[in-house]
Amino acid sequence: MVSDMVRVRVPASSANLGPGFDCIGVALNLYTEISMGFVEDGLLIEVLGEDYKDIEKNQDNLVYRAAKKVFEKTQTDYTGLNIKIKVGIPLGSGLGSSASAIIGGMVAANELIGKPLRDDEILNLAASMEGHADNVGPALLGGLNIMAFDGAVTYYIRKELDEDLKFVAFTPNRVLKTETARNVLPAKVDFKDAVFNTGRSSLLAAALFSEEYGLLKIASQDVLHQKYRSKLIPEMYKCFDKALECGAYFAFLSGAGPTIMAVCSEESADKVVEGVGSVYKSMEIDYRVYKLKCDNKGAHIIKNGSTTNCLL
Amino acid sequence: MVSDMVRVRVPASSANLGPGFDCIGVALNLYTEISMGFVEDGLLIEVLGEDYKDIEKNQDNLVYRAAKKVFEKTQTDYTGLNIKIKVGIPLGSGLGSSASAIIGGMVAANELIGKPLRDDEILNLAASMEGHADNVGPALLGGLNIMAFDGAVTYYIRKELDEDLKFVAFTPNRVLKTETARNVLPAKVDFKDAVFNTGRSSLLAAALFSEEYGLLKIASQDVLHQKYRSKLIPEMYKCFDKALECGAYFAFLSGAGPTIMAVCSEESADKVVEGVGSVYKSMEIDYRVYKLKCDNKGAHIIKNGSTTNCLL
Repeated sequence: MVSDMVRVRVPASSANLGPGFDCIGVALNLYTEISMGFVEDGLLIEVLGEDYKDIEKNQDNLVYRAAKKVFEKTQTDYTGLNIKIKVGIPLGSGLGSSASAIIGGMVAANELIGKPLRDDEILNLAASMEGHADNVGPALLGGLNIMAFDGAVTYYIRKELDEDLKFVAFTPNRVLKTETARNVLPAKVDFKDAVFNTGRSSLLAAALFSEEYGLLKIASQDVLHQKYRSKLIPEMYKCFDKALECGAYFAFLSGAGPTIMAVCSEESADKVVEGVGSVYKSMEIDYRVYKLKCDNKGAHIIKNGSTTNCLL
Repeated sequence: MVSDMVRVRVPASSANLGPGFDCIGVALNLYTEISMGFVEDGLLIEVLGEDYKDIEKNQDNLVYRAAKKVFEKTQTDYTGLNIKIKVGIPLGSGLGSSASAIIGGMVAANELIGKPLRDDEILNLAASMEGHADNVGPALLGGLNIMAFDGAVTYYIRKELDEDLKFVAFTPNRVLKTETARNVLPAKVDFKDAVFNTGRSSLLAAALFSEEYGLLKIASQDVLHQKYRSKLIPEMYKCFDKALECGAYFAFLSGAGPTIMAVCSEESADKVVEGVGSVYKSMEIDYRVYKLKCDNKGAHIIKNGSTTNCLL
C-alpha cells in the first residue's frame, strides 16, 4: 500500500493560564508540520530542524505512536510508513510540542485513510494518550478551550480570541520535562487553596469569555502549581512582576514550563518583550522570545499541490 | 433625626452551583423586603411572617448590624432606628437569607442617608461581613455572578440569565446552620480533587456564559464539598439522580443546604417538581418547593408612595 503524502499543520498551545490547571488552554500561531504517507515497507522518519536531533526516529517516535492509535482504532493494515516532521515548536518548553506531535500524527493518519474518525474521536484518543486535554484540545480545535476530560471523553467549550490579544512567550534555552515538573506537585493541598483556584479559574474563564481583560490580573492568580514549580524556574516570579509592570494583563507559567507567557495588548507588547527580557539578561539565562497571538483554526491539512512547493 | 421609611426588596440567592464553591452564585425571584427609617430614639425591629419568631429584635439583628456598618463607614449620627423585615426567603435553608438581610440592611441604610456609598463599596462591606461574596453579590447585583473576594475587595463578572431557565428549589422544613455545614469540610484535600473542581467550575462558568446548557451535567460535578455534606443531607444524592432522570440540566446543594436546587427548562420543571418531590415523600421528609427563575435586577428600592400601599 503506497500513497501520496498528506501534510498537516498543528499550532502550539499554552495550558493552565495560571489557575486553570489541566483545564484551560489556548492555541498559538507557532506551528509544527507533519507529513505522512504509506510506503512499501518499514518505518522512515525524517526530522527537519537542527535543534531536534534527539527526536526518536523509530517506533518510539510520538508522531508514529499517535498515528498507530488511529490505524489500530480503524483496523487499518499497511506495509510501511513515511513520516516527515518539521518542528516549529520548541520541545520540552511548555508550548505543547507533545500535543502537536500527537494531534499531527493522528490528523495525518486519519486523513491518509479517508477521514473515518470525527474530530471528537481524535480528541478523545489524543487526550487518553496525553492524560489531559488542555494542550491536545487547542492543538486540534484552535482558539481558547475550557476542557474537562473524564479519562475517556473530553468535554469542552471553545472561544475564538481576538488577534489584538498578544501572547508573548519567553522560552529559556533549557528543557524541562513535564514529568519533572509534575513530580514537584504535592499529593494533598489545603482546602482553602483548592477553593482559591476553583474561584480564580472560574473567574478567568468568565473574564476570557466576556472579554473583560481588566479582571485577568486577579483572575489569573494561582496557588495550586506555580508556587511549587518556581523552584525549578527561579526567574518565574520576577518575570511575572516585570510583565505586569510593563502593562501585561497577566503572566503565567506556560504548561509545565519553563516558558513564561505574558498576555498583553498590541500596545504593551514591545515594552513587555524588553522588560521581561531584561530579567533573563540580568540572571544570565539564554532565552528566545515569540510574539504570538491565538490561532483560531487549529490543526489543518495543507493542500498546496506538488511536493516541490512543500516545506517538507 | 426622624425620616420617612425607605423600602428595599432583596432577592434570594443560590451559591456554589456544584463545583463553584464560594465563587458562583445566582439571584432568584424570591424576596425579602426591608423597610428602615430614623426615629426619635431606640431600636425598634418588627418582623413579619409567623415562621420567623426566632429572628433577633435587638442589636444582634443582622439587618441592624449591616445597617450599622454603613452608618459607621459614613460617620452618620442618628438617635433611633426603626426596621421592619418581611421575610420571604426561608432562613437557614441555603437560599441566601443572611445575604438578603445584610444587603437589605446596607442598601436601606445607604438610601436613607442619600446614597453616599457606591454599589461596589456596599458589596465589599457585605462580603467582609459574610466572609465570601457568592450570595451577597447576586443579592445586590442580580443575575449570575462569578466572584473572587480577596478579603477586602470583590471582583466579579455578572451575566443575566434567561427566564426560561428554571431553578426548582426543594427546601426541607429543617434548618441547617452554615457553620455546621462548614465544619464537616476537611482541612486538606487530594491535589487531584482540587484539580477536578478547578476544571469543572471553569467549564461551568464557560457553559453558563455561552449558554451551552447541554454541558451543565458534566460541568456541575463536584468533589470538594457536597460529598462531605451529604452526611448531613441524606436525601441529597437521591434527589440529584431523580432530577437528572426527570430532565434537569443539573442539580446541586444550594449554598450550605439543606435546599436542593434543580436547574431545568420550563418544559421539564413540572416533571422535576413531581419526581424529586417523590424522593422527599418516600423518605418522609417535610419540604416546600419553589419554582424560581433568575432575578436579573438585584436589590432595589421600592417607591410606591404612602405607607398604606406598603406591604410593611
